[in-house]
Amino acid sequence: MASFSSYIFLIILFIISVGASEIKSIYLPGTYQSSLLVKKHDEKTKIPFKTHYFPQILDHFTFLPRSSKVFYQKYLINDQYWHKEGGGPIFVYTGNEGNIDWFAVNTGFMVDIAPKFNALLLFIEHRFYGDSMPFGNNSYKSAKTLGYLNSQQALADYAVLIRSLKQNLSSDSSPVVVFGGSYGGMLAAWFRLKYPHIAIGAVASSAPILQFDKITPWSSFYDAVSQDFKDASLNCYKVIKGSWAELDALSTHDDGLIEVSKLFRTCKALHSVYSARDWLWEAFVYTAMVNYPTEANFMMPLPAYPVEEMCKIIDGLPKGASKLSKAFAAASLYYNYTQTEKCFNLEGGTDSHGLHGWDWQACTEMVMPMTCSNESMFPPSSFSYKEFSQDCKKQYGVKPRPHWITTEFGGYRIEQVLKRFGSNMIFSNGMQDPWSRGGVLKNISSSIVALVTQKGAHHVDFRSETKNDPDWLIMQRKQEVAIIEKWLEEYYKDLKQN
Amino acid sequence: MASFSSYIFLIILFIISVGASEIKSIYLPGTYQSSLLVKKHDEKTKIPFKTHYFPQILDHFTFLPRSSKVFYQKYLINDQYWHKEGGGPIFVYTGNEGNIDWFAVNTGFMVDIAPKFNALLLFIEHRFYGDSMPFGNNSYKSAKTLGYLNSQQALADYAVLIRSLKQNLSSDSSPVVVFGGSYGGMLAAWFRLKYPHIAIGAVASSAPILQFDKITPWSSFYDAVSQDFKDASLNCYKVIKGSWAELDALSTHDDGLIEVSKLFRTCKALHSVYSARDWLWEAFVYTAMVNYPTEANFMMPLPAYPVEEMCKIIDGLPKGASKLSKAFAAASLYYNYTQTEKCFNLEGGTDSHGLHGWDWQACTEMVMPMTCSNESMFPPSSFSYKEFSQDCKKQYGVKPRPHWITTEFGGYRIEQVLKRFGSNMIFSNGMQDPWSRGGVLKNISSSIVALVTQKGAHHVDFRSETKNDPDWLIMQRKQEVAIIEKWLEEYYKDLKQN
Repeated sequence: MASFSSYIFLIILFIISVGASEIKSIYLPGTYQSSLLVKKHDEKTKIPFKTHYFPQILDHFTFLPRSSKVFYQKYLINDQYWHKEGGGPIFVYTGNEGNIDWFAVNTGFMVDIAPKFNALLLFIEHRFYGDSMPFGNNSYKSAKTLGYLNSQQALADYAVLIRSLKQNLSSDSSPVVVFGGSYGGMLAAWFRLKYPHIAIGAVASSAPILQFDKITPWSSFYDAVSQDFKDASLNCYKVIKGSWAELDALSTHDDGLIEVSKLFRTCKALHSVYSARDWLWEAFVYTAMVNYPTEANFMMPLPAYPVEEMCKIIDGLPKGASKLSKAFAAASLYYNYTQTEKCFNLEGGTDSHGLHGWDWQACTEMVMPMTCSNESMFPPSSFSYKEFSQDCKKQYGVKPRPHWITTEFGGYRIEQVLKRFGSNMIFSNGMQDPWSRGGVLKNISSSIVALVTQKGAHHVDFRSETKNDPDWLIMQRKQEVAIIEKWLEEYYKDLKQN
Repeated sequence: MASFSSYIFLIILFIISVGASEIKSIYLPGTYQSSLLVKKHDEKTKIPFKTHYFPQILDHFTFLPRSSKVFYQKYLINDQYWHKEGGGPIFVYTGNEGNIDWFAVNTGFMVDIAPKFNALLLFIEHRFYGDSMPFGNNSYKSAKTLGYLNSQQALADYAVLIRSLKQNLSSDSSPVVVFGGSYGGMLAAWFRLKYPHIAIGAVASSAPILQFDKITPWSSFYDAVSQDFKDASLNCYKVIKGSWAELDALSTHDDGLIEVSKLFRTCKALHSVYSARDWLWEAFVYTAMVNYPTEANFMMPLPAYPVEEMCKIIDGLPKGASKLSKAFAAASLYYNYTQTEKCFNLEGGTDSHGLHGWDWQACTEMVMPMTCSNESMFPPSSFSYKEFSQDCKKQYGVKPRPHWITTEFGGYRIEQVLKRFGSNMIFSNGMQDPWSRGGVLKNISSSIVALVTQKGAHHVDFRSETKNDPDWLIMQRKQEVAIIEKWLEEYYKDLKQN
């Protein structure tokens, strides 16, 4: 697999081209798919958010003539539970890499707890995603426009918007708590660190703020995915681990493409065997991420504990069946749990933007090197910064700044740094989620705490409560509520004293 | 004085034009004068710093094609006291608005304490000052180049440079403490807040981080200047307060300019009476700032407690003499303590850059509104943001962002915010210094402390010790040393534990 070893961590979400050397999309926490963007409109009706647009400044950190250009940033508001006069808090979701509606729909936790706290709910969309396009349809055109897409500008957007909104609402003393999941959780944590005067606390769910530079071992992500499958069934893990060689063997076969197309029940004949590899890969990785304890529909509709379900499929197939066919059957659960697909489109997915915002971010600041160890269920691979950099240069005309995130936000020796600095942060993680390995998994101080669940997955705590929620999840959410209550009590007490 | 009431807070340092409506320079904490820039070269030889240049990135916060342009940032190093192997600390001066050599010369405190701490000394020049010009001689050309001059970029410069230097010196675990005075003190405090993973503590001397927006009353600065003179002598204060009307009266006189030129012993006939006003104004304001307890030469050579000396001059003159002539005599102390000037140049000062970096910063982010109250010894004045903004637009083509600094760095309710967030900061202030009113004057927590001296002036604690230092100054410096020792002890203890 040497031909794509350095790209192995790049997962195709939207398959733009068929050659392995042209893999364009980069794996990201909590990315969205176009199908979900359609779906959100149905779900949106459940939660009464009002949509607004804020005139936001293009560049907070320079004063060039172009910097003061205004664009319209989308945000959602729900004030039905807010006790404004009593100084009720403002719960802000720091939007991540997608349409904010999608995050609003999938962060039911905030809606669930809003009545208890008499809180205003505010979901702010991240610049360059959803409708918040600084240059309209040209936003993704080149580095000249995309250059304004990064986390620091996004954080400053949130600061400016929150401050302005509080002023307009005459609610200056209402405390703000920020929430975020995945990349949004990184933003929430960083927001508390950089803007403590605006947010009194942060709940960062599944935020891999330590997935940068050399803080976390590069193989940890895929090792964690593999561990999930191994925990479900050793045989299952072994089957998947062995399936890649079978696919490789087919790729050298004369009729390989036809055979793979047939095996994978593709709607159209495949152009590349690698499409099948990426299709499997995506299914296993995302299923590990969303290995939720209840039926859910975050990336795709899936049953409770879908990794176990996948492994049941593999373990239930006849011994004589090929590993590849078993892997296909397991992956089908991810793509076709609803049993509505007659065939699968492994190629030709489209991206509504023409390019992907996260790809850009990964090629500039969000450099998270990943490798596959010999122990993982994926083909072993290394990471070459040089090749990665060349690829980014080729695609966007920019070179990554691989040490910038840790320079700007820290990460190394985080326990020592934050032990005596900062406060009021929750880092929640579920160990089923491979991103947990890049998260904060231990308490740092009495008010910077880690809430870790062994059976939790990617920001499961932020999902709406259901009647089937297991006790550990109910408990985790209760802990979060209790901690937020403490922050607010302290805040109001301090406010009275001053 | 209505004609320039809104510009009253703009003090001319380098008188570019003679019309009051074209006052260009904006008063700044710790600004330098060209004469001092010459002087520094003599003094520099006393302190053995090695000069280096670091390849710095132009724009840390965007990824536009131009952002990655490299410029050379100057920094000074003194490693003669450093115990590198023992993990000796790195004391960094976060340079402010001027040539870094000048700050190195005037921050003898760091050199004085370096041997005790076995510390490396590092003075980093602020971008767009001294030799650290991103676009060479064109750096001040227009908003297209100056747009990259601001405090956030400067802080990021320091973060990148410090991290890189530590890596090159293989001294990753050496703790960094940042120091700064005046605007440099603001930068030091903000650096600790924004980059706690890079600096374990900050000593911010005379840092008016609360001089923004409406945090501190706008009249406080000139009220404090006035208080200094009133405390020295009520008569002195009254004479100065009355002198402006006499100058005003002369300005309507036919021979007014000739009379003022004669009275002020100008080398050339004046073009505007306002030049005399600004000349006096500058003398009183800067003398209050540097009202040091010992003879010193920061802005100008001056005796110990120069405000008292000025008032002695005023009080010692015959009752019959005009208030204006008394004010002139007092101001002469500031301009001619060495008795070497035969006449004074009140007009035609030049700026080696053609424009002033601080003017740009004041017209963009560093908006510090100032007014003169009826109780001050200066003519009453108000502040019009509209006029200020129009002036900035006219001069630089940019509009100020008056709420940006408080959005980015906070300031409102600072006690409440930092009571439970952050640590290891010293805010030192001397109440003689009018900038002290915009500083942190009360302890915020057990490790965010205010060291206030009644008789201290603008970052007097950062000056080299002299044999004439009063006890309160010796004590203040001892307290600072003791606090820094505590930070380091904690750091080394934590380091061992991890």
